[in-house]
Amino acid sequence: MAKKKNGKSKKSWKRRSKPGDAPGLILVDPAASPTIVRVIATGDQFLERQIQDIHELDSITAAYQRVWIDVVGLGSESTLRTLANMFHLHPLVIEDVVNVHQRAKVEEFEDGLFVVARMVDGDDPSITEQLSMYLKGNVLISFQERPGDCWDPLRQRLRQRRGKVAINDLDYLLYSMLDAVVDSYFPVLESLVEQVDLLEQDITEQVSSEQMSRIHELRGQLLSLRRSIRPHREMINELVRDSIPQIHPETRVHLRDCYDHVIQVVDAVDTYREVTSDLRDFYLSSVSNSMNEVMKLLTIISTIFIPLSFVAGVYGMNFDPEVSAWNMPELKWRYGYLLSLAIMGTVAGGLLIYFRRRRWI
Amino acid sequence: MAKKKNGKSKKSWKRRSKPGDAPGLILVDPAASPTIVRVIATGDQFLERQIQDIHELDSITAAYQRVWIDVVGLGSESTLRTLANMFHLHPLVIEDVVNVHQRAKVEEFEDGLFVVARMVDGDDPSITEQLSMYLKGNVLISFQERPGDCWDPLRQRLRQRRGKVAINDLDYLLYSMLDAVVDSYFPVLESLVEQVDLLEQDITEQVSSEQMSRIHELRGQLLSLRRSIRPHREMINELVRDSIPQIHPETRVHLRDCYDHVIQVVDAVDTYREVTSDLRDFYLSSVSNSMNEVMKLLTIISTIFIPLSFVAGVYGMNFDPEVSAWNMPELKWRYGYLLSLAIMGTVAGGLLIYFRRRRWI
Amino acid sequence: MAKKKNGKSKKSWKRRSKPGDAPGLILVDPAASPTIVRVIATGDQFLERQIQDIHELDSITAAYQRVWIDVVGLGSESTLRTLANMFHLHPLVIEDVVNVHQRAKVEEFEDGLFVVARMVDGDDPSITEQLSMYLKGNVLISFQERPGDCWDPLRQRLRQRRGKVAINDLDYLLYSMLDAVVDSYFPVLESLVEQVDLLEQDITEQVSSEQMSRIHELRGQLLSLRRSIRPHREMINELVRDSIPQIHPETRVHLRDCYDHVIQVVDAVDTYREVTSDLRDFYLSSVSNSMNEVMKLLTIISTIFIPLSFVAGVYGMNFDPEVSAWNMPELKWRYGYLLSLAIMGTVAGGLLIYFRRRRWI
Amino acid sequence: MAKKKNGKSKKSWKRRSKPGDAPGLILVDPAASPTIVRVIATGDQFLERQIQDIHELDSITAAYQRVWIDVVGLGSESTLRTLANMFHLHPLVIEDVVNVHQRAKVEEFEDGLFVVARMVDGDDPSITEQLSMYLKGNVLISFQERPGDCWDPLRQRLRQRRGKVAINDLDYLLYSMLDAVVDSYFPVLESLVEQVDLLEQDITEQVSSEQMSRIHELRGQLLSLRRSIRPHREMINELVRDSIPQIHPETRVHLRDCYDHVIQVVDAVDTYREVTSDLRDFYLSSVSNSMNEVMKLLTIISTIFIPLSFVAGVYGMNFDPEVSAWNMPELKWRYGYLLSLAIMGTVAGGLLIYFRRRRWI
Amino acid sequence: MAKKKNGKSKKSWKRRSKPGDAPGLILVDPAASPTIVRVIATGDQFLERQIQDIHELDSITAAYQRVWIDVVGLGSESTLRTLANMFHLHPLVIEDVVNVHQRAKVEEFEDGLFVVARMVDGDDPSITEQLSMYLKGNVLISFQERPGDCWDPLRQRLRQRRGKVAINDLDYLLYSMLDAVVDSYFPVLESLVEQVDLLEQDITEQVSSEQMSRIHELRGQLLSLRRSIRPHREMINELVRDSIPQIHPETRVHLRDCYDHVIQVVDAVDTYREVTSDLRDFYLSSVSNSMNEVMKLLTIISTIFIPLSFVAGVYGMNFDPEVSAWNMPELKWRYGYLLSLAIMGTVAGGLLIYFRRRRWI
Repeated sequence: MAKKKNGKSKKSWKRRSKPGDAPGLILVDPAASPTIVRVIATGDQFLERQIQDIHELDSITAAYQRVWIDVVGLGSESTLRTLANMFHLHPLVIEDVVNVHQRAKVEEFEDGLFVVARMVDGDDPSITEQLSMYLKGNVLISFQERPGDCWDPLRQRLRQRRGKVAINDLDYLLYSMLDAVVDSYFPVLESLVEQVDLLEQDITEQVSSEQMSRIHELRGQLLSLRRSIRPHREMINELVRDSIPQIHPETRVHLRDCYDHVIQVVDAVDTYREVTSDLRDFYLSSVSNSMNEVMKLLTIISTIFIPLSFVAGVYGMNFDPEVSAWNMPELKWRYGYLLSLAIMGTVAGGLLIYFRRRRWI
Repeated sequence: MAKKKNGKSKKSWKRRSKPGDAPGLILVDPAASPTIVRVIATGDQFLERQIQDIHELDSITAAYQRVWIDVVGLGSESTLRTLANMFHLHPLVIEDVVNVHQRAKVEEFEDGLFVVARMVDGDDPSITEQLSMYLKGNVLISFQERPGDCWDPLRQRLRQRRGKVAINDLDYLLYSMLDAVVDSYFPVLESLVEQVDLLEQDITEQVSSEQMSRIHELRGQLLSLRRSIRPHREMINELVRDSIPQIHPETRVHLRDCYDHVIQVVDAVDTYREVTSDLRDFYLSSVSNSMNEVMKLLTIISTIFIPLSFVAGVYGMNFDPEVSAWNMPELKWRYGYLLSLAIMGTVAGGLLIYFRRRRWI
Repeated sequence: MAKKKNGKSKKSWKRRSKPGDAPGLILVDPAASPTIVRVIATGDQFLERQIQDIHELDSITAAYQRVWIDVVGLGSESTLRTLANMFHLHPLVIEDVVNVHQRAKVEEFEDGLFVVARMVDGDDPSITEQLSMYLKGNVLISFQERPGDCWDPLRQRLRQRRGKVAINDLDYLLYSMLDAVVDSYFPVLESLVEQVDLLEQDITEQVSSEQMSRIHELRGQLLSLRRSIRPHREMINELVRDSIPQIHPETRVHLRDCYDHVIQVVDAVDTYREVTSDLRDFYLSSVSNSMNEVMKLLTIISTIFIPLSFVAGVYGMNFDPEVSAWNMPELKWRYGYLLSLAIMGTVAGGLLIYFRRRRWI
Repeated sequence: MAKKKNGKSKKSWKRRSKPGDAPGLILVDPAASPTIVRVIATGDQFLERQIQDIHELDSITAAYQRVWIDVVGLGSESTLRTLANMFHLHPLVIEDVVNVHQRAKVEEFEDGLFVVARMVDGDDPSITEQLSMYLKGNVLISFQERPGDCWDPLRQRLRQRRGKVAINDLDYLLYSMLDAVVDSYFPVLESLVEQVDLLEQDITEQVSSEQMSRIHELRGQLLSLRRSIRPHREMINELVRDSIPQIHPETRVHLRDCYDHVIQVVDAVDTYREVTSDLRDFYLSSVSNSMNEVMKLLTIISTIFIPLSFVAGVYGMNFDPEVSAWNMPELKWRYGYLLSLAIMGTVAGGLLIYFRRRRWI
Repeated sequence: MAKKKNGKSKKSWKRRSKPGDAPGLILVDPAASPTIVRVIATGDQFLERQIQDIHELDSITAAYQRVWIDVVGLGSESTLRTLANMFHLHPLVIEDVVNVHQRAKVEEFEDGLFVVARMVDGDDPSITEQLSMYLKGNVLISFQERPGDCWDPLRQRLRQRRGKVAINDLDYLLYSMLDAVVDSYFPVLESLVEQVDLLEQDITEQVSSEQMSRIHELRGQLLSLRRSIRPHREMINELVRDSIPQIHPETRVHLRDCYDHVIQVVDAVDTYREVTSDLRDFYLSSVSNSMNEVMKLLTIISTIFIPLSFVAGVYGMNFDPEVSAWNMPELKWRYGYLLSLAIMGTVAGGLLIYFRRRRWI
């Protein structure tokens, strides 16, 4: 769990600021990607381009009905600070944006709505990327850690002026973004469930020691997934329920749908945590059964042959029959050998019957 | 769990749309059954027949007091789209109808009530079928994945104009449908409980390794059952509690009864999850006890015979008594052999007494 | 658990009606006891007798202030139907009465109050009997499955016109009935707790394999008990809290007391579920410890004697010392035998010291 | 758990009345202590003495501002009945007082406040004593099972007319009583926690079989403690929260503090239940590890010596080399013995290397 | 857990007062640090110095807009009592301050707000220090057990008149203090998580017995951490939610952020409790697997060689072939030895094939 994959840390709870530091501090991660600001503005006209000078945004927001400012990479403190000042973002907002280890949440400010969501990045559920959105008037600013997200189909629809997202207000765009984030959990979940099902079949057929590692790993991944997705439930529920003025009733209907999807993921993750828990118990009992079998075999073989070997050992002793008639007279008997074999056979046969009766063999 | 039975998938959480796709998309499953539309209209007159041209429905809904449009099979996108347009279904409704992996839920729209329920299909609780119902004015549209449902007794009563369902408003029909869905869980539950009880008796009598697989399997099926039935609790509760205008007070009384049934199923499933959990612990402790017995037997036999064999081994050594008086003089003693046997007997007897005292034998 | 005792089934969740059947159906169990109707009417006068013709009840309810109609046995459909019609019982009420696998519950109807409770019948907590009560105006109808209940002291007090039950309104009688039902759980609980305590002492003294069966059985019985008693909590709480017009404030005080008793039972059952769970863990660890002891003994004996036997075996080899001076010259040494014994003694002593150090002996 | 210590039963859920008995019955336990009534009256004057004739109380309550009637021992039915009549106690109150197995609770009556609390009696958390208090006007009646309680410091302060308790109203006295009861849990808890900590250190150093009994016992005691203290949380919370007219706002502040103490105890008990649960798992895994070590030793010794003994056994066979050149010619070889020793050495060395590689030795 | 580190006890639930003691008693711990009072006063002017005579505070609070009285060490009863009298602190407040084992909580008094928080002190999560704060008008009094806290950056900012904390009201200072306390949990959590991750990698590579101790220890530390941090959630939530007049809306926004941080810690602790629980199961199953391997090896070796040794033992018997033709004639056969070796080879080969088939080797 401590490994890093292409610079994406899994420690989703780490903080950069020190205890006692002033709140609202912008402590940019030195390893963060450089900041690129793109804008997609719609309305009577359409504009999409990368912004070099942040101050261009002033005229754009004035000219277009709906402006999406798409900030990728959180490495440039000055750019972020300029943006924060231009749109009067609360210091805590910009701190949360930069401190990319937030849980999904929604926060209302006097004149804006701040939403944090987490997208699974690739197929490892323990690696997630924080996406922050700030909606204020006709501007929606989105922040993400790295280039590459799940919003390309959205951008496509905006460009082609297709679908509701191109004509509705920005709260609908916000919903569409959240919907895409939630949808990003489905392929990961699907892959995990498939692996669990395969593993279950595998264990049913033949127990092997690496299955336990697999169960353990899958449980860890389900736990990561749950931890990321769960706060979205509360967050979206708040958007649906609360009388947040920025969200239109029609969008609320869509958010309710999005909420259903989150519930579906959470539900499946919880169920599969239970499935893997059952699986682990099943595995352990199989190991236990197997050891029982091993022990039975050992016991059967030992219990039969140890007394026989003892008898053979006795007649292998070298007491001198010449010295007295009491010294192993059996050795001189006519049928001594046959008798000893008969004794052994009787002992072995008796034990076999005993084991059969106890259903060991 | 990954097996498919006659084309019915168990992956009740799978989504067909991709992250970022526009919501409300009708993505018909290519493997879905072709769509058949039947209508049962009641009122002063009675009509029941299969509809070829969807637009016939216009005149029927105008002519009859209560119209049940029964859509079976979700394979024809055009038919579904026409229906959606004709009755102004919200895009999300039709998306949910087609995406047959919803949890049971109820959603109010401006002019309609949308209910999703899941019926167990056959005797495998992990295979369920989604039934969606949309109630709007004098029309109730029901959607199901495959031909064959639990509503035939309902249709029979409508045809014979018998029972309240034939004279009450459509909310009563909706309730009757939900009641039939909930009732479909009872036989499956009954069969599971019977299997658990039989298994319990079985384990009490004789432990065997395939019992663990049975426990594991039954736990998995109870889990599936719980996952399907549980959302119905919330769903029906919402119908009972909320002031939904489409539901009459009298129907609410019936829904309360239906709610009791759901609680009964959930309660039994939870109890039997606990029973199987207890059963698993009982099984494991039985295995553990059995291994303890095996080990005790091995230990008794080994502990008795290993020292005896050692004594026999000693007197089987070939040191030459001729060379010196110190070399195994016992071999030449008059009662050497008897003495050695006596030593062995004493050792064995002492150990037997020891084991008896520890209550091993 | 699947056994039946004198015709009392344990499957408290089984339904007789089929999925899709009309609700409110009276499906009498063919094995049910025949219906006997008794009446106890109080007021200025007192009447107690068995009723042959249901229609006599009309005049009785008109003549007496408080009428308790005591219906025992649910086998006669016609009698039940006549009663239902005479007192305008809702079809769902009579369905619930006949379908004797309800959870405890309370339901308000327009003009009546319907209460279902479950009494433990005898000393097996998995066998309960459903008692249904319908309170309407000056009539309280009670339904039970079989003759024999916990209400005889109540009837006695009514006959002797003694106690509040004889002078208060029928809601007090209803409370007294519920109180008796809840009290019926105490002896069973007491017996279970005593058994758990005895078993605990037993395990502390000596572990044996049938103790696990006892633990398992007691856990099952506690689970049954919990399942029966738990819904009473909610049910009585509803009676206490809700502003049900039939319940007087003074009765509410008594119901609160009854509620406390239910809580006491639920609490004790939950605690003893935990106690048995702890007991099971204790048992298993005792078995584990015991096996550890067994293994240690085996290992000590084997580890000491196997090397010794090996030495004896070596000097039991038959290499011919005559052929060369390299062939087992030890056999010809003066102190060869003593030396071999010394070697064995040293090995054994060393191992004994080793085991002592590891605190095995 | 079934043991009795100086007549104090642990069965805190047992009832004396039979199912169906009239509620409010005073069923005095024949083994209960005889009833002694003491009174402490404060106000302008101070009075403390034992009362012989209950009717003296009439004049005392009239003459003093605040009267605490301290009833010890619940054995005299007549005394209790007289008290009940004199102060118009509800029959259920006096039933609860006598039936000393109540959970902590608070009940409001029209003109009085009834509080039940449980004090731990001595150092065994499974033995508690019920303390009941009834506050009505200027009288507070307290009932306890046995002489000896935790209120002596309170009485002292009253006698010395010291502290708020001597000048405030009776609700403050009630609070002080509850505070003393809650404080009585701390020494017991402290002792349990100390034992858990010592046991933990003990297990870390050396595992022994009686540690499991200790863990089991401590878990049982923590469970008892939790069961007694927990209802106090709810009870005191009700006193804090509800608008009970008898409780002054200033007293409420103190009760809130008392509530904090209850939470602290509950919290510690819950935490230490978890600690002992972890400890049990640790213990079991230590046993498991230990058995693993034992098995490894046995396996190493057996696996090395069993093949060696076999080789020795082979050359101990008595096939006659004289008969044919095929019969054990090795025995006649010049270096036969050395060769056999070399073979044994090689086998032993190889196995040692193998075990070393697997890190067993 | 029972160890003490530099005088810091871990028993966070211990009380010094005895049951029945008057509430509000100041029972100073004899081992407590001596009390030092420092003051930081801001406003138009700035003052920071240590106070010798408590009564100087009167003039300071009159002269400055915002006064932070920083009390370190709780050893001097007289100083604390003087402070309490000067600022009219409720007796329960000063009792809680001195009794340094409170859970985090907030309490409103008529004219003041009392907050208790717990800071982790160093890297051992089981050692925490209680920080109490009392906010009243323009004075904030903070109490701590020992010199050294997490507020130095705060003091620095006040001195440099930098940041909001220097210009906002005292509720902002209170928030800043709480924020610093919550932040103090992050490094400890971080270190624990790192250790868990390292341990997980370690176990995956090679199982050893001290890993279990590590798991156990980490679980204990996570439990301690959870117990300390959890009450902060409730406490800060109350500050955010409740309409406490001392807290300005702007500060509420910051407290909400602080609340998020608490949730993050609680969430991570809960997740890592689950991770260690999974880890423990994984460890135990690895041990179980390992024992299975050991047993298999023992069984294979024993099962192969025990029968072979028996055959060798038989032909090591000394029955005299001279006496009769029935006494071990094999010894005289031409190929007797080879035959016996062949028998042994066949037995061994057969068993090897058997083990291969069962996939043991």
